[in-house]
Amino acid sequence: GEPLRIAGQAFTSRLVMGTGGAGNLNILESALRASGTQLTTVAMRRIDPAAGGGLIDVLNRVGVQVLPNTAGCRTAREALLTARLARELLGTSWVKLEVVADDDTLLPDAGELLDAAGQLVDDGFTVLAYTNDDPVLALRLENAGCAAVMPLGAPIGTGLGVLNPHNIALIAQRASVPIILDAGVGTASDAALAMELGCDGVLLATAVTRAQDPARMAVAMRLAVQAGHAARLAGRIPKRERALASSTPVGLAEFGDRS
Amino acid sequence: GEPLRIAGQAFTSRLVMGTGGAGNLNILESALRASGTQLTTVAMRRIDPAAGGGLIDVLNRVGVQVLPNTAGCRTAREALLTARLARELLGTSWVKLEVVADDDTLLPDAGELLDAAGQLVDDGFTVLAYTNDDPVLALRLENAGCAAVMPLGAPIGTGLGVLNPHNIALIAQRASVPIILDAGVGTASDAALAMELGCDGVLLATAVTRAQDPARMAVAMRLAVQAGHAARLAGRIPKRERALASSTPVGLAEFGDRS
Amino acid sequence: GEPLRIAGQAFTSRLVMGTGGAGNLNILESALRASGTQLTTVAMRRIDPAAGGGLIDVLNRVGVQVLPNTAGCRTAREALLTARLARELLGTSWVKLEVVADDDTLLPDAGELLDAAGQLVDDGFTVLAYTNDDPVLALRLENAGCAAVMPLGAPIGTGLGVLNPHNIALIAQRASVPIILDAGVGTASDAALAMELGCDGVLLATAVTRAQDPARMAVAMRLAVQAGHAARLAGRIPKRERALASSTPVGLAEFGDRS
Amino acid sequence: GEPLRIAGQAFTSRLVMGTGGAGNLNILESALRASGTQLTTVAMRRIDPAAGGGLIDVLNRVGVQVLPNTAGCRTAREALLTARLARELLGTSWVKLEVVADDDTLLPDAGELLDAAGQLVDDGFTVLAYTNDDPVLALRLENAGCAAVMPLGAPIGTGLGVLNPHNIALIAQRASVPIILDAGVGTASDAALAMELGCDGVLLATAVTRAQDPARMAVAMRLAVQAGHAARLAGRIPKRERALASSTPVGLAEFGDRS
Repeated sequence: GEPLRIAGQAFTSRLVMGTGGAGNLNILESALRASGTQLTTVAMRRIDPAAGGGLIDVLNRVGVQVLPNTAGCRTAREALLTARLARELLGTSWVKLEVVADDDTLLPDAGELLDAAGQLVDDGFTVLAYTNDDPVLALRLENAGCAAVMPLGAPIGTGLGVLNPHNIALIAQRASVPIILDAGVGTASDAALAMELGCDGVLLATAVTRAQDPARMAVAMRLAVQAGHAARLAGRIPKRERALASSTPVGLAEFGDRS
Repeated sequence: GEPLRIAGQAFTSRLVMGTGGAGNLNILESALRASGTQLTTVAMRRIDPAAGGGLIDVLNRVGVQVLPNTAGCRTAREALLTARLARELLGTSWVKLEVVADDDTLLPDAGELLDAAGQLVDDGFTVLAYTNDDPVLALRLENAGCAAVMPLGAPIGTGLGVLNPHNIALIAQRASVPIILDAGVGTASDAALAMELGCDGVLLATAVTRAQDPARMAVAMRLAVQAGHAARLAGRIPKRERALASSTPVGLAEFGDRS
Repeated sequence: GEPLRIAGQAFTSRLVMGTGGAGNLNILESALRASGTQLTTVAMRRIDPAAGGGLIDVLNRVGVQVLPNTAGCRTAREALLTARLARELLGTSWVKLEVVADDDTLLPDAGELLDAAGQLVDDGFTVLAYTNDDPVLALRLENAGCAAVMPLGAPIGTGLGVLNPHNIALIAQRASVPIILDAGVGTASDAALAMELGCDGVLLATAVTRAQDPARMAVAMRLAVQAGHAARLAGRIPKRERALASSTPVGLAEFGDRS
Repeated sequence: GEPLRIAGQAFTSRLVMGTGGAGNLNILESALRASGTQLTTVAMRRIDPAAGGGLIDVLNRVGVQVLPNTAGCRTAREALLTARLARELLGTSWVKLEVVADDDTLLPDAGELLDAAGQLVDDGFTVLAYTNDDPVLALRLENAGCAAVMPLGAPIGTGLGVLNPHNIALIAQRASVPIILDAGVGTASDAALAMELGCDGVLLATAVTRAQDPARMAVAMRLAVQAGHAARLAGRIPKRERALASSTPVGLAEFGDRS
């Protein structure tokens, strides 16, 4: 299929991985490899530039593009500072923008998020914005110049799946930039559903890193994203209220029934 | 992963395909190939032994095992006759047993189904029984000697997915024979969910054959079944009501956050 | 509205109550009164004819019709014996027929249930049959002469609501006798939904008797059943994928908007 | 039960009605009476002060408090102007604040809405704010001084019910002002569910005015809101994965079973 294109860059994998929650770096590395991801987020507040080895080495070894995020930021100002620090340290102008309202829900703050997005775009960043599932805000973020919009399926770390498929489908329908479902995915069918709703990719971390067998779950997620994407493109059958036996086309009397 | 074992026979693919609903045999053939299936159902009432070419040739060419079904049968007696005819014509003692109550719902008739299963087992058949999602009936069919039990997710041809995940999970939990979700699958996430609920395989036909692009949907279903199976084995994270940021294990200060 | 008619008898209340699970008889009595029920089930195995006072006295005092049930029976034979004992002891030929497959799921056994129903009808009983949500079995029970068919929303005592609304709606649509949702109701919206799906009544016990405030929950259930029934009769608006502002009819320029 | 208190004023009815969508004023009047509502919204853009008779007369006759809304406004500025006009014309400082992003989705614009809420509060209005189901924005509106927060269940006029119960429950849990579910209700069980999730009231219009029998649906909604509220206060039973027969308390051997 077509690659995912963000800001002109092509990714054959539509699964973006996060790095939080893994028991250790070996587990993380094997999960990242199994996932097939080409883009992986890293929280800036956890990067220690002085430390040798560590997370960034793993990502380099796996060969994925590093996407710094602004996790933990509560205001546009904090997010801007964090993004600039990331640009300096990691040499990338890409940033996953997170501005959350509180530590309890980890839900985005619409106002600060939109402010931050505008400022980061003005400052030359390629912004992938983590947001709630409000279709209006999604469009505002796109109009502010975000390279991708990343609505949540459910709050971070809950594994509740896509709580409001109606909103996600509406967001995807109206978008001109890639929509990547971010947060809430708990299992493979959640990821497949997100793609079927029209998302262009899925971002997840704990669903893999905290699974009992992270590498195997990474495989599951890789396959699920591909499955959901293919199903979307294949054009599913309509839902029907009544049963329907398949019928035999004329001239094909030997042809099999639904079975 | 482990192959699916039915009556001692191993299948590396856990996707069982039906043959009904395709526009023509070429479309069917490419869909079957794309699905990776190794076991494919055929309705006996549509087999014309005198006809050359046709459906059976396709299945032989693709190299899948033929599983005759008793679609259209309304009584145990009809099912028994049909199964015997199939055994003679196709040289297989495997049969997918369908005994439906009426043409409107195509729902199984519990009583006739159980009778038929017992008689077929006594007659030496390897019986894969299509049933509703009643956990009691599923166990009765297993006890009657069925080699696999195939509960519906939703009525045939509806594409409504798994209407009662609670029942499917309970059936899978209590079974000692393979449970294969049969009927109702509309898209990839439905198939993945069925596997996550504990099913050992998925059988579908119209979701692929009547999709806008059958071969691509066949790929989607192949991947989705693998994804759901891997996710099941990987041990998903528990669902949580509250958000959870990933935390940093001690000694890994440079380690990435959820992101 | 129209009363509920079962076997020619009219009930203005469409809420049938069970009596299990209450902390004591006073709590039960106040809950029954608050529910407005006119028909209440009693498990025969718990009736001690020699005991004075007790459950039956409460029901007489509240003025509800006693509906003995065959809870705990596992075979048609047991159910028949229990029903006959009830007829003798309580002087009623009405019986709520329960034949469950095991104590773990408390799910009905389709075969034994249908046998028992036929035998009880032949023996002159007015049979209200507790069943699973299989639309085929529901019709078979009606054809066997049952005066009412009582499909479950979810297994007894789970409070999971209506797990398969599709099946319940189909059962109600095809029935010529009253359909009473039995088991699974956990809260008021479940009861309302059951009625909206086309049920003629709702039977519940633990949702009320084990609630923190049974009498208040009984009020909730009474209102919910009425609400769902009225909503069904009122003809709900269709579901729409897209928003719709209300428009102003011509000549009513001063008329209010959706608001 | 306790009355609903908004800005110090008590309402015994927790059902707020809208006036849009009715076929004519007679139908509307009978529906309003049947609903038992004490608070009813009116779109300012449809009020013609010069017109005799009409909508306001109906509301006065029914004896409900008029709640002007700012339907159709797209900016804080428009909303402020509309609210002031309403205050002048109708002599009330209460306003239901609506600021929508576009006519297609009728979804609130978070930024403009929050701005408008602050300005209206500063100008002495009692503001009931229609919002999306974002828990962060709900809290921001409360902090801005809104007297009530009114999250949507689903987009206006869709009748899709409560698309994201998780969010509505979270909003209700964290609020110190009344939460009134607004928009999306299609039938009685939706209204009951909203109350069970912790809402203090429900606002609806087209679910009643466009029903086939508006007055009967108004009755259904009145009962459903009461039912859901009572169920919430009564403390529902927990959901269980496994069946549970009721047991007999010691010393109550004659006591009835779940039945």
